[in-house]
Amino acid sequence: MATVEAAAIHAAVAAQRDFAASLFDRLRQDGLDEPGVTRDPYGPGEQRAHVTMADAAQSLGLAIERDAGANLYMTQPGRDRVARRVVIGSHLDSVPHGGNFDGAAGVVAGLVALAALNQLGLKPACDITVMGIRAEESIWFQVSYIGSRGALGTLPDGALDVRRIDTGRTLADHIADCGGDPAALRAGRRFLNPQDLRAYLELHIEQAPSLMEAGKPVAICTGIPGNFRYPDARIEGSHDHVGLPRRFRRDAAMAGAEFAMAIDKLWEDHEARGIPMAATIGRFHTDPALHGLTIVPGSFHFSLDVRAYDEAVLAELDQSVDRIIEGVEQRRGVRFHRGAKARAAVGPVDPTIRSALIDGAAALGIPSIDLGSPASHDAAAFAACGVPMGMIFVRNANGSHNPREAMALDDFLAGTTVLSRWLAATVI
Amino acid sequence: MATVEAAAIHAAVAAQRDFAASLFDRLRQDGLDEPGVTRDPYGPGEQRAHVTMADAAQSLGLAIERDAGANLYMTQPGRDRVARRVVIGSHLDSVPHGGNFDGAAGVVAGLVALAALNQLGLKPACDITVMGIRAEESIWFQVSYIGSRGALGTLPDGALDVRRIDTGRTLADHIADCGGDPAALRAGRRFLNPQDLRAYLELHIEQAPSLMEAGKPVAICTGIPGNFRYPDARIEGSHDHVGLPRRFRRDAAMAGAEFAMAIDKLWEDHEARGIPMAATIGRFHTDPALHGLTIVPGSFHFSLDVRAYDEAVLAELDQSVDRIIEGVEQRRGVRFHRGAKARAAVGPVDPTIRSALIDGAAALGIPSIDLGSPASHDAAAFAACGVPMGMIFVRNANGSHNPREAMALDDFLAGTTVLSRWLAATVI
Repeated sequence: MATVEAAAIHAAVAAQRDFAASLFDRLRQDGLDEPGVTRDPYGPGEQRAHVTMADAAQSLGLAIERDAGANLYMTQPGRDRVARRVVIGSHLDSVPHGGNFDGAAGVVAGLVALAALNQLGLKPACDITVMGIRAEESIWFQVSYIGSRGALGTLPDGALDVRRIDTGRTLADHIADCGGDPAALRAGRRFLNPQDLRAYLELHIEQAPSLMEAGKPVAICTGIPGNFRYPDARIEGSHDHVGLPRRFRRDAAMAGAEFAMAIDKLWEDHEARGIPMAATIGRFHTDPALHGLTIVPGSFHFSLDVRAYDEAVLAELDQSVDRIIEGVEQRRGVRFHRGAKARAAVGPVDPTIRSALIDGAAALGIPSIDLGSPASHDAAAFAACGVPMGMIFVRNANGSHNPREAMALDDFLAGTTVLSRWLAATVI
Repeated sequence: MATVEAAAIHAAVAAQRDFAASLFDRLRQDGLDEPGVTRDPYGPGEQRAHVTMADAAQSLGLAIERDAGANLYMTQPGRDRVARRVVIGSHLDSVPHGGNFDGAAGVVAGLVALAALNQLGLKPACDITVMGIRAEESIWFQVSYIGSRGALGTLPDGALDVRRIDTGRTLADHIADCGGDPAALRAGRRFLNPQDLRAYLELHIEQAPSLMEAGKPVAICTGIPGNFRYPDARIEGSHDHVGLPRRFRRDAAMAGAEFAMAIDKLWEDHEARGIPMAATIGRFHTDPALHGLTIVPGSFHFSLDVRAYDEAVLAELDQSVDRIIEGVEQRRGVRFHRGAKARAAVGPVDPTIRSALIDGAAALGIPSIDLGSPASHDAAAFAACGVPMGMIFVRNANGSHNPREAMALDDFLAGTTVLSRWLAATVI
């Protein structure tokens, strides 16, 4: 460990304040799509953010590389170029009309940390690579961790053939548009070998208000939830006239309502038992081509995302959802068509990294809490390959996936200082 | 009462079998819009049906008139042209992709009855007018009984300025397209003076399966439900990230689900207490521009139709809906925006007409049951003006407002025979 005073690290990161602020401004301009920003993955929005970050990396003298999945790698070479490297990453895409910080803050943090180490005159022992990851937001392709799993060679079968929900074009076509090489991905080429990675660290805004509630700027992640998902499920009942007596109805929307309330109750019960989880029914709708004021709905559509921090809890929830569906089908005379099912494994945090981050925050005098990640992150894809993984969350008001995200620059710099100290303490 | 044998009336109506079948065939061709038929009100679909019915009326030698609302009147002159007349009517429009019989069957029945009376050599004492009514299906303009209330001069304020949900054009513009005179309607001109009407009768397919369940061809109506409606209500919550803990969420879709289940429970409770009503949430949906797999829904849209056969029950239900909304708002941190509210009064059946129809069916040997109308009908608009009103329902499989409506021609002729006998017994 390099012996660097806390005050020196604070000062070196604080000196990057204008660099960080102008990068965030440029990213916001690049993605502006009122309300909010849209950095559509493998599309013009994300592409502009990649150009901006590569320009910034070049100004810092970092080496630039891109892989078959069009991920961006910005590397500060270490004294030993063949030693296992450290990756600092996050994603550069966003949801439609999202905020400026979800994802991008982690990539900016990586560049700021490298700039701070450089200012301190510290030369890392191994390569440190800041990674601008593609296509993390699964709303677009309904597949998790596309960029990071492409880099690690763990994309699921068929992923390249899924279609983006707005363009209708395949992931392969979108990757090719952005200078990637889908054929190489199909052939199994991977840019990152997990065995060559010493650690993966990711800084990300908190997407829930726990840090706002706690009044602290930074949280150290205790784990990333795994999930199971039905992106496009459907309930089939019978379209009927508004006057149909109750006993004859097979109302698909009422079945949807009963299903939703049972899912909500499942969560409430787990919460009461102290078992962390979350359940979200993001799409929940009658069929716009068929519904109307005087028609009993005969078809209903929904998505479901269920997440938890323990594989056993996830398996139990999976069975509970099946039981709920069976009950609603019997009581309401409808059929559920679950559609495709997606899964993501629980992402365990490396205990050594976690301890070092907690100790580092304390040494820096930066207040922090422990926090189970509310959301999924690319970090989980690294953890799933056995790469030691850690995450830092930064306080953020108004939640995420909406234009009202609000991360204070001071809080961002606090989180980045924790990250920088970890690098100085671990790989210098 | 003319002394006409049951057998003679049966025979005279049966003789119109081919006339009825070919009229239904032509109407189906006119409205074909797979799946099903679409007779869009004050649009090409309904317009073609009006032409077809006017042609058929002309072939029967009836007098043709049209009013400012473009309703169609097909009249068999009576011996006394100034005596109060009888109107036999129903509507010629349909829901999108509906069936061929909802509405049109009642207009065909009127022509068949006049043809049968003519074949029996019976000359009515007063005018008998078959009315092809415009725009009954409120799904299009979100207003009830447009054609009949236009004819009676009871259209609500502002109705002419509402817009058809698909075209976005005003009712006034649509009426003008079809040869009507919206300015005259605005000026309060009415074609039918309720005081000049002796009775209004309407034959309609049953829109629920009660007659299928009972195994009988015909029902005599005991009453038409009134309703209150929120055609375009909205719930405002907060769009948030999929990982947001439960305690922070203001999930508009979950609020919608809780609202729907409470409405369903309200109905279940009334049913258990033997109080007839119905509640339908026909549109029930997240916002397609904003929803997604990984977004907690912050906005939700729904329609509500609540109907009952007693004004006091309707008023009590109205208050219950308000209480349900308040409870959901408090528990879920959301706001309901109810939007416009529409109402239709309960439509009482004239007891003398009802008795005569029941006795007539018995005299004809046609099995019938008593039935509260499951649906709203133009007949309610006549009853609301004090016109003595009666309705005959015809057995129909697979419900209504869908392409699978299935009324057997024998059942149609049975209902039309009851109608014809009433005319023969009452106005000959």
